[in-house]
Amino acid sequence: MAFSLPAIADLDNPDLARRLQHALDNKTKPLGSLGRLEALAARLGLILGSASPELRAPQMAVFAGDHGLAAQGVSAYPSDVTWQMVENFLAGGAAVSVLARQHGIALTVVDCGVKRDFAPRPGLLIRKIAAGTADASVAPAMTPEQRDAALENGKALLDELPGNALLLGEMGIGNTSSASLLLSRLAQLDIAECTGAGTGLDDAGVVRKTDILRKVLARHEAARQPLDALAAFGGFEIATMVGAILQAAAQNRVIVVDGFIVSAAVLVASRMAPHVLQRCVFAHRSGERGHALMLAALRGEPLLDLQLRLGEGSGAALAWPLMQSACAILRDMASFESAGVSREEGKH
Amino acid sequence: MAFSLPAIADLDNPDLARRLQHALDNKTKPLGSLGRLEALAARLGLILGSASPELRAPQMAVFAGDHGLAAQGVSAYPSDVTWQMVENFLAGGAAVSVLARQHGIALTVVDCGVKRDFAPRPGLLIRKIAAGTADASVAPAMTPEQRDAALENGKALLDELPGNALLLGEMGIGNTSSASLLLSRLAQLDIAECTGAGTGLDDAGVVRKTDILRKVLARHEAARQPLDALAAFGGFEIATMVGAILQAAAQNRVIVVDGFIVSAAVLVASRMAPHVLQRCVFAHRSGERGHALMLAALRGEPLLDLQLRLGEGSGAALAWPLMQSACAILRDMASFESAGVSREEGKH
Repeated sequence: MAFSLPAIADLDNPDLARRLQHALDNKTKPLGSLGRLEALAARLGLILGSASPELRAPQMAVFAGDHGLAAQGVSAYPSDVTWQMVENFLAGGAAVSVLARQHGIALTVVDCGVKRDFAPRPGLLIRKIAAGTADASVAPAMTPEQRDAALENGKALLDELPGNALLLGEMGIGNTSSASLLLSRLAQLDIAECTGAGTGLDDAGVVRKTDILRKVLARHEAARQPLDALAAFGGFEIATMVGAILQAAAQNRVIVVDGFIVSAAVLVASRMAPHVLQRCVFAHRSGERGHALMLAALRGEPLLDLQLRLGEGSGAALAWPLMQSACAILRDMASFESAGVSREEGKH
Repeated sequence: MAFSLPAIADLDNPDLARRLQHALDNKTKPLGSLGRLEALAARLGLILGSASPELRAPQMAVFAGDHGLAAQGVSAYPSDVTWQMVENFLAGGAAVSVLARQHGIALTVVDCGVKRDFAPRPGLLIRKIAAGTADASVAPAMTPEQRDAALENGKALLDELPGNALLLGEMGIGNTSSASLLLSRLAQLDIAECTGAGTGLDDAGVVRKTDILRKVLARHEAARQPLDALAAFGGFEIATMVGAILQAAAQNRVIVVDGFIVSAAVLVASRMAPHVLQRCVFAHRSGERGHALMLAALRGEPLLDLQLRLGEGSGAALAWPLMQSACAILRDMASFESAGVSREEGKH
């Protein structure tokens, strides 16, 4: 069954935008003095369709999958780390587990195609397409059927997740390679500009990885459309995330974008439906080479710049309280009138 | 009574630093992949003297005072806004009130020299030196006795505030002028580089403000030492804050530095006792011109860069959850051993 793209409306709403700006301008502070927090508040108001937006039941979904290309030595870590980290997420010991707990964000791990089978348990959704993608250096990472099944899985996943905000994370040894390949192909950038150290390659390792990725690109020279590139380069976690992003956008949820790999899924989704980007909040600029270019391609302005390069959704979780603050400003701050504070001179 | 500088030890502790780095390196993540959050965690550990630091009972103190120089038209707002905003802080409607409430930070407003008298009430400490400083364009903003009394007030204030973290905020129409003057004089920078729009002057207003400040500097040509400059340029809220910073440093509290004006108080304090800076966390880079130079003078690396220019402690409150996250990483994340996760290849 081919994937059916959900309808994603244009959020353009000049009347609501005007009401949001008016509310912000009447809060007891100099005009614009909360800087990017004000733009964030206005954005959240537009997404949630309210001049007094309220974030409810935030959901962190961590999409996990293995990559056949990892056999070529593109990562500093062995593939086994994917399932080990899934166990760590579920046990509550990973960075994203700790940060989600700190902020009261529900955490769901989605097995989109990890090599190992997991026992069912709370917090784990098994949506496995296969035990890892094919090695993209010898074949497409997935078949069109697998890709469409992953997209549908992602779309259906939203039924399991309440609330109006979706934070995105991922885990998959080798998946910076997929993200670099997607960026290079869809944004037409040289692969060397798009390739970085991932979890910790040294300089020689990055050169080797770049060479491998260049060959993968040549191998799939014909895969130029977003969905073709997604099938060619993988992975299952990215494809499932693309489906989830499209459905979250259709439902007008706030989509909190983590780092390089999540941004690659947003890149694919936004090439299928540009209005997706109206629902996206970019949490941070990653330390991974290529992320700055990815953000430029998406015209994303990240909230944080802390040289994070962990993934998992850790950056999305770290940025979350800024989103709560933006809503709190709109909802709870006094206006000049209500507080009896004088306005700027000459602007009474 | 002259102000007596509290003893502030050198926090240099190679053994604890090593233990902190070892703990961070053994968490289930690629080495260094939490970027600046790891450096923050190590810093908080050193300040609190623990490889497993815990932030307790954070206190936001907002220091308020009026400025005689405001009569010269250096601000876009009338002086009355100082007391009006104090009322707004106490009523819970200001940005800092909303943000402190969001994060469970106790808020105390300190009247260091507001022109208007306040009825006593919970959350307000009256430590008034006088009803506003003198106009620095015609006389020193305060006498040496007033300055020393304010410093002592700030020092004694810490007895009223529990916990091990002090977040600093301020309110005082005209106080970006004091901060610009202190930066120019103590860091030997041209006043034009140090002067910005404050709460919202237009370009012509900034030019006029710069001219006024240049004359103020010339008027107090002899005030070159930190305490002399503090008395010459004010304000009472900055002097009180300097005392509080020194005492908080002596007590090894985490000092969370807000924007331009709080940084000016840190500049003065650090020129009196350089080890103060070992306890400081710089919350954000403000949109106020001069703050980048101030941070450079203090070698401060801010956590956020959101073009905030409100003051009040709003930036400190926004950065607070990052500090909690840094401690949570150290305290709650699993190690490779405890989680059974494989290490980087070749590094077993």
